[in-house]
Amino acid sequence: MFENSQEQRTNLSELGEFGLIDHLTKQLESKQESTIKGIGDDAAVIDFKHKQTLVSTDFLVEGVHFDLAYMPLKHLGYKAVMVNLSDIYAMNGTASQVTVSIAVSNRFPVEALEELYAGIQLAAKMYQVDVVGGDTTSSTSGLIISVTAIGYAEEKEVVYRSGAKANDLLVVTGDLGAAYMGLQILEREKQVFKANPNAQPDLDQYTYLIERQLKPEARKDIPPLLKALDVKPTSMIDISDGLSSEIIHLCKNSKVGANLFEEKIPLDPALISVCEEFELDSTTVALSGGEDYELLFTIDQGDYDKIKGNPNLTVIGHIAEEKEGMHLITRANQKLPLIARGWNSMPKED
Amino acid sequence: MFENSQEQRTNLSELGEFGLIDHLTKQLESKQESTIKGIGDDAAVIDFKHKQTLVSTDFLVEGVHFDLAYMPLKHLGYKAVMVNLSDIYAMNGTASQVTVSIAVSNRFPVEALEELYAGIQLAAKMYQVDVVGGDTTSSTSGLIISVTAIGYAEEKEVVYRSGAKANDLLVVTGDLGAAYMGLQILEREKQVFKANPNAQPDLDQYTYLIERQLKPEARKDIPPLLKALDVKPTSMIDISDGLSSEIIHLCKNSKVGANLFEEKIPLDPALISVCEEFELDSTTVALSGGEDYELLFTIDQGDYDKIKGNPNLTVIGHIAEEKEGMHLITRANQKLPLIARGWNSMPKED
Repeated sequence: MFENSQEQRTNLSELGEFGLIDHLTKQLESKQESTIKGIGDDAAVIDFKHKQTLVSTDFLVEGVHFDLAYMPLKHLGYKAVMVNLSDIYAMNGTASQVTVSIAVSNRFPVEALEELYAGIQLAAKMYQVDVVGGDTTSSTSGLIISVTAIGYAEEKEVVYRSGAKANDLLVVTGDLGAAYMGLQILEREKQVFKANPNAQPDLDQYTYLIERQLKPEARKDIPPLLKALDVKPTSMIDISDGLSSEIIHLCKNSKVGANLFEEKIPLDPALISVCEEFELDSTTVALSGGEDYELLFTIDQGDYDKIKGNPNLTVIGHIAEEKEGMHLITRANQKLPLIARGWNSMPKED
Repeated sequence: MFENSQEQRTNLSELGEFGLIDHLTKQLESKQESTIKGIGDDAAVIDFKHKQTLVSTDFLVEGVHFDLAYMPLKHLGYKAVMVNLSDIYAMNGTASQVTVSIAVSNRFPVEALEELYAGIQLAAKMYQVDVVGGDTTSSTSGLIISVTAIGYAEEKEVVYRSGAKANDLLVVTGDLGAAYMGLQILEREKQVFKANPNAQPDLDQYTYLIERQLKPEARKDIPPLLKALDVKPTSMIDISDGLSSEIIHLCKNSKVGANLFEEKIPLDPALISVCEEFELDSTTVALSGGEDYELLFTIDQGDYDKIKGNPNLTVIGHIAEEKEGMHLITRANQKLPLIARGWNSMPKED
């Protein structure tokens, strides 16, 4: 896991900018009907006919969003695509293209970028999106990835953050908190490795949590599932920053309040057991952990029967009037205000 | 020019991530009919009706693409937008939206980012594009800007790099080399300033060249001009890396050769005089300088009368069969192979 050896090392300067782009993108084939022109011109050309275009973009910065000590480059490439596709699914849309730009220092050999692109390519294949453009440039320090995801939806299908109304049900997909605890395990192992580079980590029991951190999957399945169930959410958002902060976003955009029931928050058994080991409260982890890339949405109460019993979907609360505020109802029936924990600290410059 | 003082300094951490995004984007208003939803949801929503969507993206990295010693942040914001709009115009399209992501270290106060956004906003206003999204994150070192430009065109209007054919005329807009010499002047002044911080630079005679470097303008006017002249180029590309390298791109994509006439290359008198001062060959500067953001395109010979005499357009050569290769015909009537100079060196990591 913590190996840093490279069998082969080709310096980036041996290929030059154009050579590098050609080398990394030569295996990328456009397969989407909407991709008229992918990589190789001034701009990509896309034809969504009468559908609306969805665009979302995110940065991943080394030392801020990822640590290459335990993040394999192939996983990083995969995750960089996931993070962005998740935003398209959160609009109830279909993702169809991405552009991927990387800025990289000469610390990285060509083989490292090949690994990164292998992950990008795998994600593109699994999620049926075309890589239609990007930029490859040098950086003075580290690796920075910028992905823009492009997708489409019929005008009447698009779901915004702003449509939730009082008495709607608050629903979440999958389970929460696992990606955060996966990160805690990896951080702990990094410290163990620093102290004793010959230690053999036994991480078998943490597989699920580590995978949620290193190889998250965006919920491509949810928009078609909702369509099949004949449910159009009244509002939707993806969970990148922790449940609490996303509920607050939804509520602020929809000008409503919410009640979230602690006992309803879906947690994986592996998460509960690791939280005990780390002496962390699992609810706090689910509320503030982030990086789960699940979807949070609201539906009209009348649609409850359509989603009831679906193993992918959990009703965790309901929307209230704005003046009622946003609260967590604990297992002990206490009513606590929801607090957002965003990115509130800036790392110091080296 | 080289001042580094800030009257007010608000640390980024005082605002936090969400506060920072809100603060920087609150003045951005969407004005394009096609922008259904701009900043504030998981993805922007754009409706181009039946038109095709154009997408292009570029990175600007501190220490690689710009030097804040002489690049004011407002200009940098403006230029970051220009560089990307230029790619949309090079497809013969209309630019309508941009997303702007910035990664920034805590070396920068909020006021510095306000300056950067003021430039972005000015560019958006002047070029009638909406800022519809982006990401603001911390970096461990320096400032990195990633812009994605989005535009549209009718299917039949889109111009690719691949349509040039033998005997087409090779045409360029504006004049070349000025941005590169502007950079040389700024670099020289930086050295003077380092040696004597009290020196008062007299840069009046270099105004045009410096402006071409610090505040380039993308050729928004060219697609409508060509339409008005009833000319559809057979191929087009924007000149970001120097004329030579762009001609090679066009030729390779179109599987043709080209003859470029040295005496036809449009040069501003200020460029010629500064090249003499710096003892540089002005043709070499125009061929390899880059950052001019002019457009290079090819037209059918039959369209020559339509563009003849237009002060924006200069015929600089013609397309040849692929087997004839790509050449510069010098003033002395020598035939020299065209050589691309891209980005062939990587800066060392600090």
